[in-house]
Amino acid sequence: MNKEIAIYTISDSIGETSQKLIGAVMVQYPDVAFRNAYRFPFVTDEQELVGILKDAKKEDAIVISTLVNRRLAQVAKEYSLSESLAYYDLMQPFFSMIEEKLHVQPIEKPGIVHKLDTEYFQRISAIEFAVKYDDGKNPQGFLTADAVILGVSRTSKTPLSMYLANRGHKIANLPLIPEVPVPQVLDQVDSDRIIGLICQPEKLVKIRSNRLESLGLGHTTSYTDVEKVRRELAYAQSIFKKYQSQVIDVTDKSIEETAYLVEEHLKKSVAKLR
Amino acid sequence: MNKEIAIYTISDSIGETSQKLIGAVMVQYPDVAFRNAYRFPFVTDEQELVGILKDAKKEDAIVISTLVNRRLAQVAKEYSLSESLAYYDLMQPFFSMIEEKLHVQPIEKPGIVHKLDTEYFQRISAIEFAVKYDDGKNPQGFLTADAVILGVSRTSKTPLSMYLANRGHKIANLPLIPEVPVPQVLDQVDSDRIIGLICQPEKLVKIRSNRLESLGLGHTTSYTDVEKVRRELAYAQSIFKKYQSQVIDVTDKSIEETAYLVEEHLKKSVAKLR
Repeated sequence: MNKEIAIYTISDSIGETSQKLIGAVMVQYPDVAFRNAYRFPFVTDEQELVGILKDAKKEDAIVISTLVNRRLAQVAKEYSLSESLAYYDLMQPFFSMIEEKLHVQPIEKPGIVHKLDTEYFQRISAIEFAVKYDDGKNPQGFLTADAVILGVSRTSKTPLSMYLANRGHKIANLPLIPEVPVPQVLDQVDSDRIIGLICQPEKLVKIRSNRLESLGLGHTTSYTDVEKVRRELAYAQSIFKKYQSQVIDVTDKSIEETAYLVEEHLKKSVAKLR
Repeated sequence: MNKEIAIYTISDSIGETSQKLIGAVMVQYPDVAFRNAYRFPFVTDEQELVGILKDAKKEDAIVISTLVNRRLAQVAKEYSLSESLAYYDLMQPFFSMIEEKLHVQPIEKPGIVHKLDTEYFQRISAIEFAVKYDDGKNPQGFLTADAVILGVSRTSKTPLSMYLANRGHKIANLPLIPEVPVPQVLDQVDSDRIIGLICQPEKLVKIRSNRLESLGLGHTTSYTDVEKVRRELAYAQSIFKKYQSQVIDVTDKSIEETAYLVEEHLKKSVAKLR
């Protein structure tokens, strides 16, 4: 890494959108060091804003803004034009498009509007559900879950369940262990709601070795033996076949990508039922 | 709601950045119905892309793109210009700014790069930690947690813990109940790592009533009695005072906003230690 750049983000809320965009851009430049420690949330004052822009200019930074306040956005735009600052406003072009089409103005209310609406309560209860029915703790949860996730150890069942729960889905998960029979209650779950996770054995061995290392344990156990892992995965496949579950290969997939595939599958199943 | 608009999102990955932006924009137009069901991920083919753009044009939609492939982005841009389609490319302006400053090109690799790096393993183990030490299940976890979250029932301890865990923080949480003494092990936790959640009593009553309703229970219990709730909250404040914990008022805050404040507090505490 010999090239580096500072990214400033300015928001009148917490600036999550900018952070997502920066994350997506960063992976496109593996040889550039992004210094993204300059996050300025809750900016509502013109003087404060100009102070930040001046610092950004000194550092030759790129400034990303999600200001919803039109006056502040205008100040930042004018400053950037006159000082040749690299300034990228994510909100205003979108607002302009909407104005052009619908002739309406944004309310310019900063921040995620925290509504105690159905969606909010659904999300909270989904998270509590996922914690309660994690790791096969209580298989009765399978009956009321939106989906039951199955997989051998270290196929990312728990993180996937929590990520989906955060998006409002009620998820239970069950570890598959060849020596332990699958709970009978799974027979009552519709196959559309059963998701099996699979992974390349070599990758799984790597993940498991890392796990053992982090626990301060040695490497040479059957837990990380590739032949043993292959047998475990073959057993998992036989279970997926028996229950005609949807199978997702998580090798090289991020939690977000796997979650997306689960959501698409669940949407399709719901559509089929209608 | 008498105005409505369709939003198409096009990505060569899952399109999370667009979704975040749309969420932030939508709250600025409470009277507009956004039809955001047109999410096109994994677009890698020119013909497919043009097909989507044609549909968008027919519907008079706004198209948001996070295509990293320059050729596809160019095709979409040219189509939009010639057909006057409202097209908003989030990636390319950012790429141009970087090119201008550093003279480097993006690798144009679609998708979240899924690396089995330290950060990934840290996130997975943080999520497992939060599940294990949720709801005061095992107070020994307080000793190794990055933060211990305290609060009376329904102050969003669990969702907050899971959200922070997903961002790599090891979080334990403990419900505060006036009749139940706080585990002694909390005395060994540095006050910088203790976070107390507080909420306006009226709001908490509303949240609890909703909770009971969702469980099919009536309203008239001490759980939702505002005087009783006030006493619970006073007890919580006395605990926060005793442990000199950071106190966050979660009234009207989204999980994301509260999580942001916790992270900022933890950062400051770490900085203080250095």
